[in-house]
Amino acid sequence: MLTPELLTKESFSDYGDIIEIADSTPITINSGNCQRYSDLATLDICESGVAGISLFDAKPYSNPLTLTYVERHPLGSQAFMPTNTDRYLVLVADDINGRAQTPKVFITDGYQGVNYKRNTWHGVLTPIVKQSLFVVVDYIGDGNNLEEFEFDSPYVINFD
Amino acid sequence: MLTPELLTKESFSDYGDIIEIADSTPITINSGNCQRYSDLATLDICESGVAGISLFDAKPYSNPLTLTYVERHPLGSQAFMPTNTDRYLVLVADDINGRAQTPKVFITDGYQGVNYKRNTWHGVLTPIVKQSLFVVVDYIGDGNNLEEFEFDSPYVINFD
Repeated sequence: MLTPELLTKESFSDYGDIIEIADSTPITINSGNCQRYSDLATLDICESGVAGISLFDAKPYSNPLTLTYVERHPLGSQAFMPTNTDRYLVLVADDINGRAQTPKVFITDGYQGVNYKRNTWHGVLTPIVKQSLFVVVDYIGDGNNLEEFEFDSPYVINFD
Repeated sequence: MLTPELLTKESFSDYGDIIEIADSTPITINSGNCQRYSDLATLDICESGVAGISLFDAKPYSNPLTLTYVERHPLGSQAFMPTNTDRYLVLVADDINGRAQTPKVFITDGYQGVNYKRNTWHGVLTPIVKQSLFVVVDYIGDGNNLEEFEFDSPYVINFD
């Protein structure tokens, strides 16, 4: 049984960026009316395609979550930003010789997006409150950008 | 006095993309749990920089809005997606010989982002309900990416 820990820049740095305004210094624009927190994610997109903006509409998962597989994208980083303030799970795993290891389980604080590094094992988008829309920035182009790894035994995650 | 009209793909097509799931056909991913509405905006980023993800935290404007200037970005398109379902104003203007013309005023339906084409005159981010966070994808890099145009006489916009 795995349980989530709060997502932080330190714990997540091997896997990608956290897209949030916390700990970022803005610049003031628009005659003082807007704070710009600039360039919060490193987009790493293979030259065979381009970065594009998509919307993902995902159903929620219930507790406990049974994690049977993770996936990774060889052609580019993949960024997710929620369009609500519901917390969601973020699952990643180290790689050894093409095999995903025991997953690390994070939960957001409601104000965080994530940008997975290219080729980093991660769980699928996992809202836990309600059906939710996410802004996604990832590779758009030809080629096989999806690799999946099925665990020998599923992991059970208790996020209650 | 100008009043807003509802933002539609047809009325906005000269100025950019609407980022929304309406009228877009998704693909089903993540074992049936997620609908992916793919590649909803044309990112046009000058080669002197890269596309990046930022967060804009903007204060709301009250009715009526006095519009004194618009701006444009010569080095890249600029996409905005709200992280809430509040409606906001979208203001654009045609260009004649470097001068912005009478603005066109749109209001979103609460589920729409916009992507302004490179070098298109537009008003600054204009929430009208409450202070709001937007996901922004635009040019990150060197060079002057901001041009402003001040109208000879301000326009008054009644959005109530």
